Amino acid sequence: MSVSEFLHDKSQQVEAALEAALNECDKVPSALMEAMRYSLLGGGKRLRPALALSACELVCGDACPAIPAACALEMVHCYSLIHDDLPAMDDDDMRRGKASSHKRFGEATAILAGDALLTLAFEVLAQSGDIRQILTLAKAAGPEGMVCGQILDMHAEGRPHSFESLCHIHACKTGALIRASLELGALAAGAQYDQLPPFTRFGEHLGLLFQITDDILDVEGDAELLGKSIGKDAQNEKATYPQLLGMKEARRLAEDAADQAREALAPFGERARIFHQLVLYILHRNH
Amino acid sequence: MSVSEFLHDKSQQVEAALEAALNECDKVPSALMEAMRYSLLGGGKRLRPALALSACELVCGDACPAIPAACALEMVHCYSLIHDDLPAMDDDDMRRGKASSHKRFGEATAILAGDALLTLAFEVLAQSGDIRQILTLAKAAGPEGMVCGQILDMHAEGRPHSFESLCHIHACKTGALIRASLELGALAAGAQYDQLPPFTRFGEHLGLLFQITDDILDVEGDAELLGKSIGKDAQNEKATYPQLLGMKEARRLAEDAADQAREALAPFGERARIFHQLVLYILHRNH
Repeated sequence: MSVSEFLHDKSQQVEAALEAALNECDKVPSALMEAMRYSLLGGGKRLRPALALSACELVCGDACPAIPAACALEMVHCYSLIHDDLPAMDDDDMRRGKASSHKRFGEATAILAGDALLTLAFEVLAQSGDIRQILTLAKAAGPEGMVCGQILDMHAEGRPHSFESLCHIHACKTGALIRASLELGALAAGAQYDQLPPFTRFGEHLGLLFQITDDILDVEGDAELLGKSIGKDAQNEKATYPQLLGMKEARRLAEDAADQAREALAPFGERARIFHQLVLYILHRNH
Repeated sequence: MSVSEFLHDKSQQVEAALEAALNECDKVPSALMEAMRYSLLGGGKRLRPALALSACELVCGDACPAIPAACALEMVHCYSLIHDDLPAMDDDDMRRGKASSHKRFGEATAILAGDALLTLAFEVLAQSGDIRQILTLAKAAGPEGMVCGQILDMHAEGRPHSFESLCHIHACKTGALIRASLELGALAAGAQYDQLPPFTRFGEHLGLLFQITDDILDVEGDAELLGKSIGKDAQNEKATYPQLLGMKEARRLAEDAADQAREALAPFGERARIFHQLVLYILHRNH
C-alpha cells in the first residue's frame, strides 16, 4: 500500500467516525453545529488520526480501539486551527482551501466552535473508558503543550530567536499533539506506559520533521496545493527554520529528523514499514 | 455553621487546591500563567466547587474525593467567563471587581488562558481516575451544554423571546455546569448513576434560581458588591426573567425554584441542611 492510499484509507475511517460523533450531538444549535462541521469534516490530511490508528494497529493488530482517540485528536487539532486563525491571533483568512471559521461565521461563533470541539474531544475520548488517554491528551493540548507553544510563538513574533527557543516553541505547538497521537494509539491498544518510549521518540522526531517541512513550504510551497496563504511567516516576522539556518541547513535538519524518527521504531522491524514510508512522504511533501 | 462561613470554608479548601494545581504546571510560560492565575485565583463565590464538595460529603461523609472535581469545575467556569467577556462575545470590561482578562492581558492571551484552563480542567479531573466524571463534565460544558447556551444567548440578543426559550438557554448556559457540580460530587463519593437523580434535580432548580436572581441583580443590584457592570442585559437587549415576566412574577418563580430545589434533597432529611440554607442564601443574595 502506498502512503497516499494508506492516508486515504485511514482518513475515510476517521471521517466516518467524526461524522457519527457529530450526529450523536443532536441537541446542538444549528448555527454552532454548522461551524463545527465546517471545520471538522471534509478537509485536512488527518495525519494525527492516521498516526493513532496505525500505532494501535502496530501494538495489537487492530486499529479500531483507537477510533475515539483518532476523533479526539482531530477535534483538538481543528479547535487549535480555528482559534489560531482568529484576528487577535494569527489573523488568517484561509484554511484548508476555504475561508477560515471566523471569516465564514463571525468571530463569536468561531471562538465557540473551537471551545465546543475541544470539549467534545474529551467527551468522545472518555468513551474509550481509559483515563490514561484523557491525561495524555490533556497534557499535550494544555498550557504545558500546545497552548504553551501558541503563546510562545505569538510573543516571539518580530523578536530575534535562538535555534533552541524555536525548537522549544515547535515541540510544544505542533510536536506535543503529534507525539500524543502515537502515544494515544499505543495506549488504546492496551500498551503499558513502559512500552511508550519508541512511540514518544518517533512522535517527537516526526513533529520536528513536520514543522521544518511546514516552514519550507511557507517559503517555497504552492498556496493552492496547501489550501492556505503562504509567505505568512516572513510577513509576520516569524522565526522559522529556513530563516534561522538557511534553506540548505533546514533541509539537512529535516533529513536528520527523518532518520531519527525511523530509528525510533526500529525495534518493530518490517512491521513498522508504513511509518517509515510516512516519514519519507512528509520529508518530500508538497502540501 | 452559617452559609457565609460554609462558603468561606469551602472556598479556602478549593483555593489551596487550585493554587497547588497551578503550581504543578511548572513549564507554563509566565505570560500565560499570569493570565491563568489572574482569572482563577482570589475571586468569585466558588459556588460550583462548594456544591461538588458538599454533595460528596453528603454521600460518603468526606469532601476530599471531590477535590479534583471542585478544581475542574472552577477552571471550566473561569474559562467560560474569560471567553464570554471577549469583545466578540459579551464585550465586558469588568469581572469579579477587576478588569476582565482581555482588558488586562489583550485578546490573544485571554483566548489562550481560557483554552488552557478548559484543557487543564480535564487533566486535573483525570487525577480522580474516574472516567464517569470526565464524561459528565464534558457533556455539561460542551456543545450540548454550556457552549450551546452561550451561542443561543448570543443569537437571541435583541430578538423577541418566549419563556420556554429563555429557560432552555439558561438551563444550558448556567444550569448545566451547576447540575454537573452536584453530580460530580456524588460520583466522586462513589455514587452509582442511579443515585444521581436527587442531585440532578437539585442542581437544575438551583441553576434556575441562580439565573433568576442574577437577572434581578442586573436590574436592582449594586455594581460594586457584584464586582461587575450592571444594566448590561437591558443595554444588550437581552431577554431576562424580570423583563419577560415582570419583577413580581420573576420573584415568585425564584421562590418556586427554591422550594423545588429543597424538595429534591428531601430524602436526605436533616443531613442536607447546608443545601437548604444555601438555597435561601441564593434566593436572598445581593451579590
